[in-house]
Amino acid sequence: MKRHVYLEDIPLAEAQRALRQALEAVGLWQPLAAETILVAEAHGRITATAVWAKLSSPHYHASAMDGFALRAQDSAGAAETHPVRFTLVDSPEDAERARRPAQAVNTGHPLPAWANAVVMIEHTQAVSDEAGPGIEIRAALPPWQHVRPMGEDMVATELVLPANHKLRPVDLGALAGSGHATVTVYRRPSVAIIPTGSELVAAETAVSGLAPGQIIEYNSLVLAAQVAEWGGAPTRWPIVADDLAAIKTAVQQAAQTHDLILINAGSSAGSEDYTAHVVRELGQLLVHGVAVRPGHPVILGLIAPHAASPTPHSPVPIIGVPGYPVSAALTGEIFVEPLLARWQGQPPYEPPTLQATLTRKLNSPTGDDDFVRVAVGQVGDRVLATPLNRGAGVITSLVRADGLVRVPRFSEGLNAGTAVTVHLYRPPRDIERTLVAIGSHDLTLDLLAQFLAEKAAGLRLSSANVGSLGGLMALRRGESHFGGCHLLDPDSGTYNDSYVRRYLPGQEIVLVTLVGREQGWIVPPGNPRGLADWADAAQAGVRIVNRQRGAGTRVLLEYELGQRGIQPGDVAGYDHEEYTHLAVAAAVASGTAAAGLGIQAAARALQLDFVPLTHERYELVMTLATYESDLLRPLLELLHDEAFRTAVTALPGYDITHMGETRRMTT
Amino acid sequence: MKRHVYLEDIPLAEAQRALRQALEAVGLWQPLAAETILVAEAHGRITATAVWAKLSSPHYHASAMDGFALRAQDSAGAAETHPVRFTLVDSPEDAERARRPAQAVNTGHPLPAWANAVVMIEHTQAVSDEAGPGIEIRAALPPWQHVRPMGEDMVATELVLPANHKLRPVDLGALAGSGHATVTVYRRPSVAIIPTGSELVAAETAVSGLAPGQIIEYNSLVLAAQVAEWGGAPTRWPIVADDLAAIKTAVQQAAQTHDLILINAGSSAGSEDYTAHVVRELGQLLVHGVAVRPGHPVILGLIAPHAASPTPHSPVPIIGVPGYPVSAALTGEIFVEPLLARWQGQPPYEPPTLQATLTRKLNSPTGDDDFVRVAVGQVGDRVLATPLNRGAGVITSLVRADGLVRVPRFSEGLNAGTAVTVHLYRPPRDIERTLVAIGSHDLTLDLLAQFLAEKAAGLRLSSANVGSLGGLMALRRGESHFGGCHLLDPDSGTYNDSYVRRYLPGQEIVLVTLVGREQGWIVPPGNPRGLADWADAAQAGVRIVNRQRGAGTRVLLEYELGQRGIQPGDVAGYDHEEYTHLAVAAAVASGTAAAGLGIQAAARALQLDFVPLTHERYELVMTLATYESDLLRPLLELLHDEAFRTAVTALPGYDITHMGETRRMTT
Repeated sequence: MKRHVYLEDIPLAEAQRALRQALEAVGLWQPLAAETILVAEAHGRITATAVWAKLSSPHYHASAMDGFALRAQDSAGAAETHPVRFTLVDSPEDAERARRPAQAVNTGHPLPAWANAVVMIEHTQAVSDEAGPGIEIRAALPPWQHVRPMGEDMVATELVLPANHKLRPVDLGALAGSGHATVTVYRRPSVAIIPTGSELVAAETAVSGLAPGQIIEYNSLVLAAQVAEWGGAPTRWPIVADDLAAIKTAVQQAAQTHDLILINAGSSAGSEDYTAHVVRELGQLLVHGVAVRPGHPVILGLIAPHAASPTPHSPVPIIGVPGYPVSAALTGEIFVEPLLARWQGQPPYEPPTLQATLTRKLNSPTGDDDFVRVAVGQVGDRVLATPLNRGAGVITSLVRADGLVRVPRFSEGLNAGTAVTVHLYRPPRDIERTLVAIGSHDLTLDLLAQFLAEKAAGLRLSSANVGSLGGLMALRRGESHFGGCHLLDPDSGTYNDSYVRRYLPGQEIVLVTLVGREQGWIVPPGNPRGLADWADAAQAGVRIVNRQRGAGTRVLLEYELGQRGIQPGDVAGYDHEEYTHLAVAAAVASGTAAAGLGIQAAARALQLDFVPLTHERYELVMTLATYESDLLRPLLELLHDEAFRTAVTALPGYDITHMGETRRMTT
Repeated sequence: MKRHVYLEDIPLAEAQRALRQALEAVGLWQPLAAETILVAEAHGRITATAVWAKLSSPHYHASAMDGFALRAQDSAGAAETHPVRFTLVDSPEDAERARRPAQAVNTGHPLPAWANAVVMIEHTQAVSDEAGPGIEIRAALPPWQHVRPMGEDMVATELVLPANHKLRPVDLGALAGSGHATVTVYRRPSVAIIPTGSELVAAETAVSGLAPGQIIEYNSLVLAAQVAEWGGAPTRWPIVADDLAAIKTAVQQAAQTHDLILINAGSSAGSEDYTAHVVRELGQLLVHGVAVRPGHPVILGLIAPHAASPTPHSPVPIIGVPGYPVSAALTGEIFVEPLLARWQGQPPYEPPTLQATLTRKLNSPTGDDDFVRVAVGQVGDRVLATPLNRGAGVITSLVRADGLVRVPRFSEGLNAGTAVTVHLYRPPRDIERTLVAIGSHDLTLDLLAQFLAEKAAGLRLSSANVGSLGGLMALRRGESHFGGCHLLDPDSGTYNDSYVRRYLPGQEIVLVTLVGREQGWIVPPGNPRGLADWADAAQAGVRIVNRQRGAGTRVLLEYELGQRGIQPGDVAGYDHEEYTHLAVAAAVASGTAAAGLGIQAAARALQLDFVPLTHERYELVMTLATYESDLLRPLLELLHDEAFRTAVTALPGYDITHMGETRRMTT
């Protein structure tokens, strides 16, 4: 029987306070010791002390132009009609002798002691007469004209930069220019990242294939990059097996040479979750379980100095990071970033925010602070936030997220239409440049996203797969720019028109053909059940996988089965729903289902077989205004781009004959 | 006589187009070749191709919880009052034999082939009876409960990331999780930065002292850090003397191993400006002189492949970067950044912008695109942009700048009160956290800025020195939070009150004492002229330096001279104006003036002597609303902070007896 300990439910703010207080008690809630480094290597580092100018800049009166140094008072009376002649000199002695001396200077040259102004070379005329070489000028100069006085930029002892300042390129110039070859900055916090788990396989070795149960270890990659981004110096430890003694050894070693330990995972309460035991044995367990979602099984603790350690050290904070990738990344943002910032004299990072309207209802667990990943898009004047897959294991939801909406604990969730604050992962400008596609799923949408990224730098395609009908509804609510659609009208046998008229009444609508494509049975290699026709879905022993309600593919299946007098109840697995063609193929590949209706490219992707049944047209539906907008133009142009058309043709089961054709309807 | 070539005045857009077209002609206006690197080293790099999933994730049906795998249909009928018993099994054979098998699984474990759901361990009860070890559950499970189906996160062949995507920490996770150990990214553009100039001294060697005319070379530090920030790999060349042959050699060498050459400076038209000659001899000079301010003497060109080169290479673009530091940094932003972005498949960087109101009139040269550095502050609801020192040699103006205002060519400038777009150097949030001080200058304001940066992380003090009276005017116009003020009323002999009543009528005003301080003559070491009293300003042969009109120090001088019957006309140098105490001291140190009225700390800073004359109180003037605001609180608290008071006491001539005392006036 498994040993099992329930996790705590410490509120987030309380957990953060506990860590802070424990660190304060041991003198670790303050910036780390400083180090002095070359200015040339200081870009991005943070000043640990104020920097005062050692030298003035310029440190002498300097000519600000290419021209001639002279005495301003000698130029009195010069005018367009009355040039004044100066004698060229090379030395102070010559200048002393000359009545009106002028000495050639370039920009940056020191002003001779006897001079107090510079005339630009463009404003002089060279003369050479019995008195030797000279210049004439035709306008009087004020004193200090074109002279950079000593200290114009900085005066010695002036404040150049305050402490706690992150050094930008120009700051390096100001440091060097005020006489500093070195600068004192905070040491970069060193962070050990220890992946634990007997099931883990390093990403570098995983390419040769994986057995079921093996998991590619990539949280350490994410955590290490986060640490580096936040100014720390990460060390990625080799993977440690689920072995109490091995984990203890790794933690003790890391504690002797690092400022912080992130151990991932083993922070939950399963039979092989050793982290809490290790922390308790080697130091102090502060928190085990924080009321956040995702990311509940967080451990916060301190590792005590090791008696037998060859190098003396302070206690070292340790954070047990949950194993699910989304939880791990969010634990970094919530617990690691503020600590690294504090150690470098910085306030915690605050992302830019944006107000948006929630497009779907959000249910949140009452007791938790809930961090919801959202896609954000601007359609017309409205900024809309759409919750993404909330599974803690779905890292692509973080990759696709434009930001987080934080639902505080004791809230019971948020209704669709609620105004929310989005903490952005991208600059707000990116949001304005996002095409929002909501509707049917097709693999060529991925290609479209790819080509847009390559050809129209800065333009993004964000697509949500909710099925054709869901796409028309989203369009009606003004939540998308367009939707992929392939809805067969059972009465007429034609595609899309009757649905567009019904769901988008009273509008000017444009339908743009993306592709023609084949639909058919996705079946295991060799087609063991011998599926050949629509009716074979009702074969005894054939369990299918279906698409969700509102998907065009499901409408098609229902129509064709109905034509053959087959009821949904006659088909095993009819209610097993997936949201994409690839998910249908995955269900077949894993043996969960014996067949599913879908497109050929999805079958090919997972090395499955395909039984073609019908050919259909897949269109993009949008309003006329969107069709004519600047935002959409690059996408429409792509439909006539040879490279894009070739790439689509390379996918099996596609036909580009009608690609880019448009139909306009007044509904 | 100097050789002199006039610079061109190519409009900025035209210069950028010329470079682009020349690069297009040789196939260099496109992303650089790609390279394949480890995902672990790819943070911050940019994908050169789209990445498609190699593996599904998970690549098997996985338990999503710690608990027991079972068949959902076996749980039918389970209820609080009707527990259903399952038999624990370890193998498929055992499962086959058992009526209701259950197998312990941890999160991430593969689901046994016979199972289709997982019950959380918390929802089970261990039992052990004659039938052996088992569990009881008290609620029926739906199929697929707590199972992560194969491909839940990613399905093999799905688009993981598009091309031209800058890799963030979570992206590394998605790459590794979809089976990639390596990723194909754009090569980092290599950029040679060649400083030229016989007057230049490396920052590392400059600390031992400089002769007049020597200039610390720091543009290469700024340019190298910029290049690194923009994704390039910079090489800082050793300083090359102003020698045509030496410069040619350096450029030829750099061209054989780099994608881009930045040569700094020698790009102007002076007698030692060789860059244009070198570019013309080694390749093609495209542009020499761009109508931008600052940054006019820019050179754009191409270095042709060198016939004798051991390694074949393409033409290499070269940018002649002007020598003034502000011009150099802006040339980086205007010409280098877009090119590096293009080479990495990115659109040019666009900074965040902010709308602000200009506080002062801006005169711009008609023919130039004018880039004006501004300080931005928010006072109440108004966001205000104040132009900073416009000298191209004043790098501190870039350090202090919050952003740039771009005045397009053919504009004749902008009036005070004009709404302008500021291209920000900082996140907009920083602007909200900036205390704007406009008024009299005192060295303790630098200390205040320093302590605020240390103690109130995230709060900045931006101060502009316009004199006490200018400060009161700025306060009246609502352009500042407070101003330093020390204005002697000639009638009453008291400080500030009468001025505050006159210039800020009908308001609730608070005056907070910052320091008491001594004013006196700043004189060269040894006080060679023997200045002892106010009246000595009128000594024959004594030429003073004065402060600008409206400065409290000038008001004081005028008052004291008037008391002694001395008129401004009696004092040589009375009209030589400087804006700060340190600038006055610098004028004395350089020999431009024999004396100036100022504070002791400024004299000490430049190793000058000081003749004390009087003691005055220096107050911060603000509205009651500002005084009571959250924004100001950290500053007011600092006035009672022991460390701050000690630091002020350490400056010569200061008295902290009344520091932090407040006086409230209804005017």
